Amino acid sequence: MTTSRLEAFSDGVFAIAATLLILNVDGAKGSLTAIWPQYAGYAVSFLTIGIIWVNHHTVMAQFDRVDRRFLFLNIVLLMCVAFVPFPTRLIAEHVRGDGLAGPALVYGATMTAMSVTYFALWTYGVRHLLRPDADERTIRGITRSYLPGSAVYLTSTLLAFVSPLASVAGYALIALFYVVESSVFGGRSPASTTSA
Amino acid sequence: MTTSRLEAFSDGVFAIAATLLILNVDGAKGSLTAIWPQYAGYAVSFLTIGIIWVNHHTVMAQFDRVDRRFLFLNIVLLMCVAFVPFPTRLIAEHVRGDGLAGPALVYGATMTAMSVTYFALWTYGVRHLLRPDADERTIRGITRSYLPGSAVYLTSTLLAFVSPLASVAGYALIALFYVVESSVFGGRSPASTTSA
Amino acid sequence: MTTSRLEAFSDGVFAIAATLLILNVDGAKGSLTAIWPQYAGYAVSFLTIGIIWVNHHTVMAQFDRVDRRFLFLNIVLLMCVAFVPFPTRLIAEHVRGDGLAGPALVYGATMTAMSVTYFALWTYGVRHLLRPDADERTIRGITRSYLPGSAVYLTSTLLAFVSPLASVAGYALIALFYVVESSVFGGRSPASTTSA
Amino acid sequence: MTTSRLEAFSDGVFAIAATLLILNVDGAKGSLTAIWPQYAGYAVSFLTIGIIWVNHHTVMAQFDRVDRRFLFLNIVLLMCVAFVPFPTRLIAEHVRGDGLAGPALVYGATMTAMSVTYFALWTYGVRHLLRPDADERTIRGITRSYLPGSAVYLTSTLLAFVSPLASVAGYALIALFYVVESSVFGGRSPASTTSA
Repeated sequence: MTTSRLEAFSDGVFAIAATLLILNVDGAKGSLTAIWPQYAGYAVSFLTIGIIWVNHHTVMAQFDRVDRRFLFLNIVLLMCVAFVPFPTRLIAEHVRGDGLAGPALVYGATMTAMSVTYFALWTYGVRHLLRPDADERTIRGITRSYLPGSAVYLTSTLLAFVSPLASVAGYALIALFYVVESSVFGGRSPASTTSA
Repeated sequence: MTTSRLEAFSDGVFAIAATLLILNVDGAKGSLTAIWPQYAGYAVSFLTIGIIWVNHHTVMAQFDRVDRRFLFLNIVLLMCVAFVPFPTRLIAEHVRGDGLAGPALVYGATMTAMSVTYFALWTYGVRHLLRPDADERTIRGITRSYLPGSAVYLTSTLLAFVSPLASVAGYALIALFYVVESSVFGGRSPASTTSA
Repeated sequence: MTTSRLEAFSDGVFAIAATLLILNVDGAKGSLTAIWPQYAGYAVSFLTIGIIWVNHHTVMAQFDRVDRRFLFLNIVLLMCVAFVPFPTRLIAEHVRGDGLAGPALVYGATMTAMSVTYFALWTYGVRHLLRPDADERTIRGITRSYLPGSAVYLTSTLLAFVSPLASVAGYALIALFYVVESSVFGGRSPASTTSA
Repeated sequence: MTTSRLEAFSDGVFAIAATLLILNVDGAKGSLTAIWPQYAGYAVSFLTIGIIWVNHHTVMAQFDRVDRRFLFLNIVLLMCVAFVPFPTRLIAEHVRGDGLAGPALVYGATMTAMSVTYFALWTYGVRHLLRPDADERTIRGITRSYLPGSAVYLTSTLLAFVSPLASVAGYALIALFYVVESSVFGGRSPASTTSA
């Protein structure tokens, strides 16, 4: 299998998972202004999946082939991505009432698992599947940028035991940070970090 | 990332958002003739997403690369497109009763946000990502054709404060206008305006 | 826009519409054997969309470009295809009780509209977009095979006024006929009729 | 039709069927820990569809064209794959109470039908559509690896008459076995077995 077929399948899952988020927005759950947490959840999770999609391409551009272990790591990654609509709906339903701790934990566990799988995928790929002409500095740059991801999400997840609301705010801030960081600071750089 | 990968992902979101509209058509909400607003909503929103899809390709054909800012503008655009099924269902449910003002406002706000993002995407692309051989007249033509979009949708949205029904009729007319304009008048011209 | 981009978008809608059919199969509506009409509806509509998909490629293989009128005819075709899950669910719900006439009419109207649009798309394409090297005999063969489609679906639709059950049986038979005709008789011929 | 168009359409159905599984995970059905069967069902079925997707590419890589019979066998295969979310939900709902026999049978019947269709597709393709340069040893290897599939699923299905719980455990073990076998033992081999 070529990396481009893997990307096409992954893009399909990214696109569907993001688009399915709209099924969580339900006018029957309150007035059109009262359901603002549903809008916020839609926006944060859509942006988060968008960011993962952008990064997935940056990563894949460093490899020129895939093996079966990589394929299955990628399927586990997609399994985490496709899971996102569920905790998103949970959080939107509970953000103003009781019982936010559980939803915040499930969302955080999903994102942490996703983050860890991503790092495993990247590390495995760098060791076994790197393009001969991959740029060492680019590789180190990506590794550096992925390292904090799991830690940040894990921290935000554990925060749910103390303050679920702070935990949820954390997830929104992480998404916002990545968008701003990517588009404002790294904005004019090429979409793929290959061409450093 | 090449423009063709961006288009493939965007096409996925367009196709899913349009196809999900059928979930809004629900026979349990009345007799098969009484639910005509659901059919109308399905048709108007499907055509609207179809038009956006056609235009997206016309726009992308002018660029030969994308950068990260462009990617995120495009994700915001897709976020608006994937949101369309929600206000479509709201309007279909309220078009014959009370409470149409809210749904009409949400639909219009979605379309206006989409229109503004589209224009931002186009303007940014023209400034930074234009193909060296892009035809100046084609560029000016596209710019001219996009300029009124946001204004027309904003007007139709604000109309909801006076007459929600007129506002909703406006959205249907805009979709109809684009289909007729594109297929009857510009019909025999090539699908991509590149080859002016 | 190239024909291959149009096909990719269309394939997306075909794949999603077919896969969404599973949402109509609902164990809460009766015992696992009592809901057999849901299984039958799933199978018939999945096969029908599969047949349309196969034919769509046969048709597109005759053209080497598309124009805006063709694009919009294609969007209308996809609008019919994506509508199929709705009347499929209606029929499954009413096939053993009263009120089958309405669902049978809606299903038939959808298929007839789809058939007519298909023929319009084909006729328009043959007149304006034909590949220079398209084989005249192949063209005539496709035209001949499409001519009865609308008539057969229209007949089965009108039958609903007399016997809704006979009408529904007709839809199943049409799907079965196409599968058998295509795979048993035309089976070993190349998938695309281009290479006659 | 080329094999790559067939793969693109099939990938679409695989991606959508897997992503739709999340709609089965429903927080309203119990506390976030009580619904663990829903999480397990999601994971097992997502991995199972992922395995089928990986194998589908391995199979398609041996052929360089398709005919109409192959197309329809493939549509039947996809019909089984897209059906998976339904019995998955049934099992998750009944795994801790009464009435697991029916769901276990439906799940098993779906997987057995899928397995048999897969083998028919493969056998037909080997007889009629093989690439001239296909490696005989690879072909025999794939045939050997597919032979037990249907039998194993059929056995697990029939087990439902004796112990539905054992049957369900069987399905999970089969998925686990394929993932471990593929990624741990065959892990470093190329993703496509073509390049044996």
